[in-house]
Order: sequence, then structure tokens, then C-alpha cells
Amino acid sequence: MTIALQSPPRRRTARLQEVSLLEGPMLLLKSIRGFRSNQGLIWLATVPLALLGLGVFSFAARAEVGLSDLTGPQAATFLADNLWLFIATILVIFMNAGFAMVEAGMCRSKNAVNILAKNLFVFALAVTAYWFIGYSLMYGDSIAGGWLYFNGLFFDPDPSGALECAAAGDTGCLVPAVDFLFQAAFAGTAATIVSGLVAERVKFGEFIVFSLILTAFIYPISGSWQWNGGWLSELGFIDFAGSSIVHSVGGWAGLIGAMLLGPRIGKFVDGKAQAMPGHNMALATLGALILWIGWYGFNPGSELAMDQYVAFVAVTTTLAAAGGAIAATVISTLTSGKPDLTMIINGILAGLVSITAGCGNMTLTGSWLAGFVGGVIVVFAVSVLDSLGIDDPVGAFSVHGVCGIWGTVVIGLWGVDGMDPSAAGIGLLNGGGISTLLVQALGAGAYAIWTIVTCWIAWSIIGSFFGGIRVSEEEETLGLDIGEHGMEAYPDFASSN
Amino acid sequence: MTIALQSPPRRRTARLQEVSLLEGPMLLLKSIRGFRSNQGLIWLATVPLALLGLGVFSFAARAEVGLSDLTGPQAATFLADNLWLFIATILVIFMNAGFAMVEAGMCRSKNAVNILAKNLFVFALAVTAYWFIGYSLMYGDSIAGGWLYFNGLFFDPDPSGALECAAAGDTGCLVPAVDFLFQAAFAGTAATIVSGLVAERVKFGEFIVFSLILTAFIYPISGSWQWNGGWLSELGFIDFAGSSIVHSVGGWAGLIGAMLLGPRIGKFVDGKAQAMPGHNMALATLGALILWIGWYGFNPGSELAMDQYVAFVAVTTTLAAAGGAIAATVISTLTSGKPDLTMIINGILAGLVSITAGCGNMTLTGSWLAGFVGGVIVVFAVSVLDSLGIDDPVGAFSVHGVCGIWGTVVIGLWGVDGMDPSAAGIGLLNGGGISTLLVQALGAGAYAIWTIVTCWIAWSIIGSFFGGIRVSEEEETLGLDIGEHGMEAYPDFASSN
Amino acid sequence: MTIALQSPPRRRTARLQEVSLLEGPMLLLKSIRGFRSNQGLIWLATVPLALLGLGVFSFAARAEVGLSDLTGPQAATFLADNLWLFIATILVIFMNAGFAMVEAGMCRSKNAVNILAKNLFVFALAVTAYWFIGYSLMYGDSIAGGWLYFNGLFFDPDPSGALECAAAGDTGCLVPAVDFLFQAAFAGTAATIVSGLVAERVKFGEFIVFSLILTAFIYPISGSWQWNGGWLSELGFIDFAGSSIVHSVGGWAGLIGAMLLGPRIGKFVDGKAQAMPGHNMALATLGALILWIGWYGFNPGSELAMDQYVAFVAVTTTLAAAGGAIAATVISTLTSGKPDLTMIINGILAGLVSITAGCGNMTLTGSWLAGFVGGVIVVFAVSVLDSLGIDDPVGAFSVHGVCGIWGTVVIGLWGVDGMDPSAAGIGLLNGGGISTLLVQALGAGAYAIWTIVTCWIAWSIIGSFFGGIRVSEEEETLGLDIGEHGMEAYPDFASSN
Repeated sequence: MTIALQSPPRRRTARLQEVSLLEGPMLLLKSIRGFRSNQGLIWLATVPLALLGLGVFSFAARAEVGLSDLTGPQAATFLADNLWLFIATILVIFMNAGFAMVEAGMCRSKNAVNILAKNLFVFALAVTAYWFIGYSLMYGDSIAGGWLYFNGLFFDPDPSGALECAAAGDTGCLVPAVDFLFQAAFAGTAATIVSGLVAERVKFGEFIVFSLILTAFIYPISGSWQWNGGWLSELGFIDFAGSSIVHSVGGWAGLIGAMLLGPRIGKFVDGKAQAMPGHNMALATLGALILWIGWYGFNPGSELAMDQYVAFVAVTTTLAAAGGAIAATVISTLTSGKPDLTMIINGILAGLVSITAGCGNMTLTGSWLAGFVGGVIVVFAVSVLDSLGIDDPVGAFSVHGVCGIWGTVVIGLWGVDGMDPSAAGIGLLNGGGISTLLVQALGAGAYAIWTIVTCWIAWSIIGSFFGGIRVSEEEETLGLDIGEHGMEAYPDFASSN
Repeated sequence: MTIALQSPPRRRTARLQEVSLLEGPMLLLKSIRGFRSNQGLIWLATVPLALLGLGVFSFAARAEVGLSDLTGPQAATFLADNLWLFIATILVIFMNAGFAMVEAGMCRSKNAVNILAKNLFVFALAVTAYWFIGYSLMYGDSIAGGWLYFNGLFFDPDPSGALECAAAGDTGCLVPAVDFLFQAAFAGTAATIVSGLVAERVKFGEFIVFSLILTAFIYPISGSWQWNGGWLSELGFIDFAGSSIVHSVGGWAGLIGAMLLGPRIGKFVDGKAQAMPGHNMALATLGALILWIGWYGFNPGSELAMDQYVAFVAVTTTLAAAGGAIAATVISTLTSGKPDLTMIINGILAGLVSITAGCGNMTLTGSWLAGFVGGVIVVFAVSVLDSLGIDDPVGAFSVHGVCGIWGTVVIGLWGVDGMDPSAAGIGLLNGGGISTLLVQALGAGAYAIWTIVTCWIAWSIIGSFFGGIRVSEEEETLGLDIGEHGMEAYPDFASSN
Repeated sequence: MTIALQSPPRRRTARLQEVSLLEGPMLLLKSIRGFRSNQGLIWLATVPLALLGLGVFSFAARAEVGLSDLTGPQAATFLADNLWLFIATILVIFMNAGFAMVEAGMCRSKNAVNILAKNLFVFALAVTAYWFIGYSLMYGDSIAGGWLYFNGLFFDPDPSGALECAAAGDTGCLVPAVDFLFQAAFAGTAATIVSGLVAERVKFGEFIVFSLILTAFIYPISGSWQWNGGWLSELGFIDFAGSSIVHSVGGWAGLIGAMLLGPRIGKFVDGKAQAMPGHNMALATLGALILWIGWYGFNPGSELAMDQYVAFVAVTTTLAAAGGAIAATVISTLTSGKPDLTMIINGILAGLVSITAGCGNMTLTGSWLAGFVGGVIVVFAVSVLDSLGIDDPVGAFSVHGVCGIWGTVVIGLWGVDGMDPSAAGIGLLNGGGISTLLVQALGAGAYAIWTIVTCWIAWSIIGSFFGGIRVSEEEETLGLDIGEHGMEAYPDFASSN
């Protein structure tokens, strides 16, 4: 029998407060033309002015229920839920270090400062943008029937609603602060994926402005379609922790950038892709392991509560990573004769992305296989991109874009109904089927179309506004570290060239 | 008065389900002879086939007690126990990054990719093997009077038993998923230790196959003797978090490999050990600090519950690390005139290994001293191995093997009776004595004999099956990164040679 | 209306036991003159002798209330409080890795081993010193009216008081072990900050002895003035997590060292500061991200309980880091034309230090702005130090000293009254005012004077005792790695010189 699968619900308790002052963003949108290089950064100097203009107002305190009003089970659940999500949040934020190390390690040393600076700075920006407007767009009140949400500017951290929720006997009563920070870290992840795709040739300031648009508007709006109970959620779409919502959105956003930028100088000679090996495999490996443990916040944290299922999600996540690593290693050994470390790394990440949507709708065997197939896919996806003449320096689209789609649709192939740790086998007999598969494909397609269209517009406007998004040929050859930052990553070491 | 010490009990609540399908492993054992290099890896391609053959069956759901059925203290304990063990698990998994950085940093740059790839891939394998059979062998039902356990293939994550346990008022009611992942991470640790001992000369594929055997069979079987209530546990053996069970087993397994491999080219000239300095002290230091915090999962996590003793175990662990660091630094300064950073690192690790067995049976002063003595031992153990002509590139046997034994027997010297944070002094007056010392020595010896015998067999079979476990002289001189992986770790930097 | 702000109270439940044996420290203070280089280290060999002399005594067990005696809300609070603080502690300890990477990355490769060794070893020492006497000096019983505290040697981990506290219905009932480890990690942080300021020219052994004095005496004594309810606390001083108590103390202690040492050879030519770029920006970036997540233990952990405010403190901390990063990036782009990665890093750290005192007394907008101003300050502080001829190789005084003061006084400018997550705006209307500002300035001044005076004495005595604290000109030119440790950090790589 073919039945549509049930997604474990994502809970939300944080309610944003109405804020009537809307003049601020006008300031932010004021254009400042004609700057020299890095004008994107200087543009940012208007942010604090805007904040000052908006920030001077106040609310009366509203907390009435305290911790001591909770009964034993209420206190236990409230404290465990909030503690767990906070720890999950820290793990997701740590993924910034993972992305920075993987991307930097897989690029050439002459661009290391640039990619490190992008990864480091983007999280600061993403948090600011998400605090200012992103969280409201993603988790605010509906203003357009499941397609658009908004609740005023500036996230409001008042925890009184969460305590009232707990006192009413509910579970998953998260204080807004922890929900905000968890979601902001997800927004940052999407932006970080972009960084890898446009590496070694994008201008720093222009990338920064794009990241701001992505985390403030593009990501939150489409995220609300599912995680704020929007139209995709109504259709029964399943994306537990964001294979589509976070990873494929990041992948598509970066792919458009990579296509508009064109390949790096020397990447394609007579239409054939040339190897441009990364400069530091130790950093890349470290980054992969940091991402692996960061995913224990990303996926199990998306349960948005502490319960008997959190560790189960961690096991599905782990087995998918293991399956991806094994597949990519075996396949790359079969195709190239030797196990390529970058393929082990990308296999792990592919496995992790492949289970991100379905980590609550898979058996253990199904999880391992979802990851294994992801590991196979990533090896071939890298080749396909190369043959299409698209230059993805660190394999980010193959990992996050392609496996993000795979992780979304595999739920229709061998997902099981809801979170059921007692289900075994690979799930072929348990659920899924054509209706689930169609909804999953629809969702993956919707995220692709939305991101492609909005990011094409965003990259294009930024390009025409600031005079292009790509550095000069001279600067690219010399390296972006000197060109964009005036410094070197490793000045004490002699180059092999 | 001489009394035998009591070990704080390790609790188990996860019960594996019976699975009757046993045909799978036959597939895994089918030999595939005559491959070219890295045949070990290709051999792995049979794993998914085996899994598919086995995986398509299902269970009925069994959960009857839910979180909402728990009373206040039950809910508080259940949530805290499971949350804490999950966090401890993440910390232990993070140790993979620590081992990778320490081992890579202490090897030469021409072998960095190889050692990174080994560390990264081994955890993926260990988790797969432990899921498939290892957990069942370690924590299944007894089938041979305290010497062998088994409960069918494939770990079963059904959490209903844990909820029933909690509803019955017990503590330490862990969902199987978190217990599995915690134990799988321990299995991975044992394999990672081996990696350091055989570094810079072992073939990649052959090492991988050995790791699979170690984590699937050798480690789980001997682990069950103590942690599944086996014969050593019955004798009163104490090994709280695995000085013997994990660290000395990993040490012995690697030592046999190192002895069978023989020393690296150039390590001994006229019988005298030559310095072969590691290529990246920053990575090694980072790895040591990651391992340090990972140990807060390893040791306090082994309490397998959240209670008033968890932080106490963290303090004994910390003080032993501090004692080890101080001892190794002072001794290496006294013997060589200057404090050697690799000795500070190994001193810290020696201190940590030295307290791993006794972290729940020591006073604080006793812990600091156990670590201090471990730090003295490690400096001299490195010299002794050198004088025996055994090449241990990163000092792994000195740290994990020798200090693993020391950490096991010190409980007989100045351990105290059970977990008693109010005990002070170094414990000479509190407990221990000759009977405890004998049991501890017996246990350490049992793990040594078991591991030496089984690993000698395993390494030998792998060697004769695949045509040796050591790379060619040519490849070793050129570096395993080119030979085994066809890539360099740092292609942009000029070599000093 | 101008009112003095209320600080959220820091709770203490750990009570140290009286210990009458005081003979031990006499051994420690015995002078050992006339040693060769690294005599500071050999001096440490007396520590275990002293410990043995003191350690052999014992207490009777005192635990009477167990976990099972707690009601539901009591158990929930007790477990969550202790679990959260333990996790926070691990995060703060992880900051050692962050400091090691930032400081090593920002120094030259020839001094990398030295700075890594200092950072690694100092935590081992700090924990030992804090266990021996520091914790007693900081959290013991008053012996001089709010200015000096002491409770005997050796920290006592007996948890029975915490259980009794919980059984009495209180919250924040921490077992002494977790409170000790959390506080010891803070002590280590102060010492680590010093390491950056005296980098690339201080003798290893002499630095080690200074760190011992700092963590055993100087830091604990002044820390007690506020966090043990001392005279500053009585005045209403607010320093939630240690902008002054930890960061500015570490900054001042290092500044005195840097001034006594003088600048590195070649730092100033004709009075003009020369760029001496760090050797590894990847490590520095990684370190910054590790410190960022470590701060989630540092600040939210200082709530010393798990409640609805923990995540709120994490959000104020995050927004300040973001504000600092944006400010430093924009300002450094405006002043030098390009965004300097070291300035992004220092901007993040400046933002974090700037919110450390006020993270419980700020609105979100106020937090972002406090960090933003910190990010502006740090850029200019670096220039001011340069113009004063003071050589701070990694900008540690600008970050920890200057922003530590800023973070302390900003509470008087736009702090709000107590922990009120429902307060919005930047707080100008909510509280603060001249009396708060004066108390904050007084506290910042008191920590400056205390640290300057005691550290000047300590550095001077160490210098005259051991024959100077600075390495020879020859050694400095060759690098401290060879001079102090007889090894290189990266022996396989060719130098660019």
C-alpha cells in the first residue's frame, strides 16, 4: 500500500512581538555608488546607524511564570529541551570552523586568507541580518497564505511565552533566544556553502553583500514554506533538518555565482578540467571531522526537544556518514586506482547531507544506504560539473546541492513513516511510495527554482551595481590574499612554484 | 586491612533483539584474491551487498511507555542521563580529530595525507562494523560463560526498554542508540591508536582490513569480559573507562603491527635510534587539546548516567593530565636540557591514559600522582622502545600501551573503595592492597595476551593474503601520500630537503 | 532617574573543608638558585614532593542526601544545573586550543613551538595551582573583611553539600567539582592572555613560574573581591563573566611583562612600528572560531545554573561578536583600504570581551553596539600601543585589556537593570547612570592597580632571581623554538627567508 509519510513535526514556541518601527531598512537600502574596491564593506557602515535609528525604544517586562512554578515533569522537560537545543546550537555554530577549514584546505594557499576571511565574517553578518529581519521572515506570522511571513523587525527574546508553554504541560517549549540562535546558525550555514563555490575569484565585498541578502531574505523566505508550517509543509513535504532548505539552497545560490563568475584561470584547458589541488589536507581533514560532530547539532538538534529520539537521529546521521565515506573511497579507488583523501572527505559530507532530510524517517540500514548512494553520487557529480565547464573549487555543489536533492527524494524511496526506531530493514516495506516521492521532488524543485531565480537576480544586481563580482585577471593570478586583503596566509614559508 | 576495591558499576539497559538471519557474514568472508594495490578497499565493496541481503526485514513497533508517563524524578533522570551520554559521545567522536592531528603532526609531511586518510576512514569503518556485529559481540547475551556474547546481527535501536526502565524508577536508563554510539566511538578509538604505531610504512588497504577485524571482533570480544559483566568483571577487575580495555588493546594491536612491519627506513643507524621529527607541531598541539576535552566524554561519560559524580571524574581526569604534563616536561628537561613539546603532549596523554581505569577509584591527590608517574613512565618508555629497535613513530605504545597498564595497576596501589569524592590524601590508607593489585595485573595481562595473539594472527593472515602489509622501499622513501593516494598534503609549499 | 544596576547574582554552593596542614607551601617556596636555562621548570619538580608531604590524610565520608531523595523539580534543577555547568566548563577549557591557535598563528614560525608549549603547559599548571591553593583563596571563607579569603589547602570535592542544597529546594546547587573546574579554567584563561603579550622573547621557564604565581595568588585574590561577595561586590560592581576580573587582569599582567621585556628585535625602527606578520592565518582563524564557541561556556556558563536566561546570554554574546567583527572590518578597510583578516579576528574577540561583563545586563541592541564599539576600539588601540613603543605581538592588550575595561564601563552607559530579556532598545532609558558608571570605573581601576603592582613585583623578582626574563639576542634572532626547546615547528618546509 502506498501511503504518504508523516514527518516528525518541527515545533515552534517562540512568538515574535509586533514592532511598528519600519523606517530602518530604508537606510540600509540607500545606495552608495562609486566606491573603490571593497565598497561592499563600507556599505556595511550604515548598519549601525540604521540600528541606532531603530533601537531606542522599550517594552515592559512580561514574565509571569517562573521556573519554580513548574511541576517535576514540566521542569525536567523544559530544562532538558532548552539545554539540548543550546548545545546543538553551539555544535552548529562550530560548523563554521569546519567549513572554513575544509574550504581553505581545498583551495590554493594564495587564496587562503580570502576564504578564511569570508567564512569568518559571514557568520557575523548572518547573525546580524537574521536578528534584524531574517528570523521574522522565517518564523513570523503569515501575511500571504503560507508563502510569506513577517512579524516586525528585530528578534524579541522574551522567554515568558516558553515558560507559560511549559506550565501548560507542553514539551518542546523553547525560549526564543535558543531557537533564534539555532536558526541563525542554519542561515549562516547556507551562506558558508556559497563561499566554497565562488572561491578563488569572487570579490570580497561583493560576496559579503550577497551573503547579507541570502541570510536576510532569500533563505528565510523559502525556509518558512516548510519550517513555519507554510505551503510545502501543508503538502506533506519532509525535510527534517534541511537537505533542501539549507544545503541545496546554499548549493544553488553558490552554483549561480560560480556560473556567473566563470571558471578560475587555468581550470579548463581545451575543455578539459585541470587538477588544482588544495594546499592543506590536514586542515581539510580537520574541517571534515568538525563538520561531522557539528552535524550532531544540525540533525538531532532539529528534533527541537530532548527525548528518546535524539540519539536515534544521531545514529542515522552517523551511519549515513560512514556509508558515504565507504562508497566514495571505494568508487574513487575503482575509478582512479587510489583512494583520494578529498573524496573521503566529500564522501563523508555527501553522506551527511543525504541523511539530513530523512534522519527522522529512515531505518538504520536505510540511512547507511542513503549515505552510501550519496557517496557514489558525489564522485560522479564532480565529474559531471567538470564536463559542463562549471568550476566548483571544493565540490560544494556536488556535496550540498546534488546530495541535498538526493537526501530529499530518498525519503520517497525507502523512508519510513515518522520516527520509528523499532523499524528495521531498509524501509521498502514500511512506507514511502509514489505520492511521497512526488511531494519530495516537488519540494526539491521548488527550492531549486526559488533559489536560482532570486540568486541570479541578486548576483546580477550586485555585479552591475559594484562593477562586476570577479576580481581582475592580474589579482586572480597573484592571489586574492594580496589583492583583497593585502596579506599572506603563510608568509614564512617558501612557495613550491 | 587489605580489601578488594569495588568498581562503580557500569550500567547497561540496551537489550539487543534476536535476529535469525545469519547468512550475511558469509558474503563478507568471501575472498577476492589477486587484486592490484588497495584491494583491501575494493574488498569493502561487498559490504553493501551483504547489507542489502540482510537488511530487508522488519519488526513490529514495541514502544508502550512514553516520556509523558514518567514522574518528575523519573523524567529528570531519564532526560539528563541520555542527554549527558549523548554529549559525552560527541566528545569521544571528536577525539578522532584529536588523534588525526596528533598523529599527522608527529609524522613527516610526505606521509600526512596517508595518516589523515587512515584516521578519517577508520571511524567510518568502525561504526559500520560495530553496527553490523561488534555491539552484539560486546553487549549481547552470554553464549559461553562470561567469555563470549552474541545477540544476532545489526544493532537494534528500539528505545522502549529504556522508557520502561525509567518508568520502573531506575536510573541510567539509556536509549540503545546513545549507548551504541558511545561504545562505537570507543571501538574507533582503539583502531585509531593502531594507526599511529604503524604510521609511515603500512599499506592503506591492508590497514583498513585490520581495523575492520579489530573493531568487529577483537575489541568487542575482550571488551565484553569486563563491561558486559564477563569473567574479569566477576573477578572484581576495575577498568572504569578503559585503560586496558581500550588503550592497552589499541597499543598492543599496533605494537604487533609495528614489530611485523619493522622500523621505518633510516630510523635505526648502527642500532641507534635517529630523530625523525614530526612536520607540524601546531597540529599536534591542537590534537592534544582536542583529545584533552574529548577525554571529558571518555571518562566522565563512562559513568553512563548524569549524577553528582560526573564532574568529580572530570576533576580526577584533569589533575592526572596536569600531573602527566608536569612530569614529562620536568623529566625531559632534566634528561635533554630543554622541554620538548612532543614530550609535553605525550605527558598530557600519558596522564589521561593513566587515570582512565581509575578515574572513579582515586582521590584527587592520587589522580594527580597517577598522572605524574604516567608522565615519568612515558619519557622512559619511548627510550626503551627505541633501544629494543621497535619503531613507534608517534609514541603511541608508550602512551596507550604502557600507561594503559600503569593506569590499570595503580588502582591496586592507591585506589580507593568505589566513587568517594570525600576521600582525600592519596588513598594509601583507604583501600587497595595485594588482592586488588593481583586482579588488576591479571586483567592487564589478559588483555595483553588476547590482543597479542589475535592481532598477530590477523596481521599475518592479512599479510599473506594481500602480499605483505608494508609498502615498497621506493614508495616509503618517496612518501605514502604519493604512493598510496596519488596526492600531496601541502603541494603549494617548498620542501626543506 | 539614575539608579544603580543590579547584577544577576553569582551563586556559590561549594564549601571548602577546613584543612589544618599548612606546612606544604613552605616546601614550594624554597629557593633553588644557580640553575642553568629552564631552571623554572626544574623548580617545579618540588611540587610533587610538597604534595606527597601534604596529601596523606583522609576524611570520613559525609554524603547523606542522595539523588533519589530529591523531588521532581529538585532533581530536574540539580541535574540540569550541574550538567550545563560541566558542559560550559568543557567549552571554556577548549578555549585553550583557541588561544594556542590564535597566538601561534599570529607569531612567526620560528617561535611557534614556544608559544604552543606555553599555552599547552600553562593550563596543566593553572589547574594544579588552583587545586592546591587558588580555589581556596578565591572562594574560601573571609579572613580580612572582603579583601582576602582562605579555607586551607587542597580543594575538597565532597558533593554532599550540593545535594543538601538541592533537597532544600534551592537552585544553582553545584557540586564542588564542577564549580572548581569551571573556575580553574577561568584562571587558566587569564594566564593564556599573558602568553600572547610576552610572545617571541620571554624565557620559557620564567614565564611558567610567573603563570604559577598568577593563577595561584594574583588572580584568585582579586577575583574573590567580586565573585566571592567581596568589597567590590558589596559596592554593586557588575562583572558577570569577567571583562575585568579575567580579561583585563590577564591583559595588565601581560602588559607589564611586555613593558619589562621591551619590544622584539626589529619591531621599532626609528620609533616606527614594523609589520611582523603572523605565520599561519588558517590556525589563527580556527582559533578565533574555537574561542567564539568557547565563549558560550564562558558567558552563559557564568549564570551558574540552567534556566531561561542561559540562551539569552548566548545571544547577547553572539551579537557583540558580530558587531565587533563588522566594526573592525569596516574600520580597517576605511583606514588601510583593505579588510585585514587579523583585524576581523581581533574584532570578534574584542566584541566578545566587550560583552563579557555586561552579557546579563544588556539589551540585544545594546549588546551589538557594545561589541561594535569594542571593534572600533581595538583597531585604534593597536595603533596607540605601537605609538607608545609597546610591543604586543598578537594584540592581546588591545583585545583583553582595553576592551575588558570598555566592557566593564559600558554597563554604566547603556546597561539595563538585571537580566531582562524583554527589555529592548539599547537600554539608555532603562537604567545605568552616573552612579553605576562610577562603580564600574572604580572596579576596572581597582583591577588595573592590583594587577599592575603585583605583576610588576612578580616579574621583577623572577627576573632578578633567574637572571632576566628575556632570551638572549642571539636566541631571539634564531627563534625560541631552537633556543628554548631544541626543535622546529615545521622542519619539513623551506623558509621564505
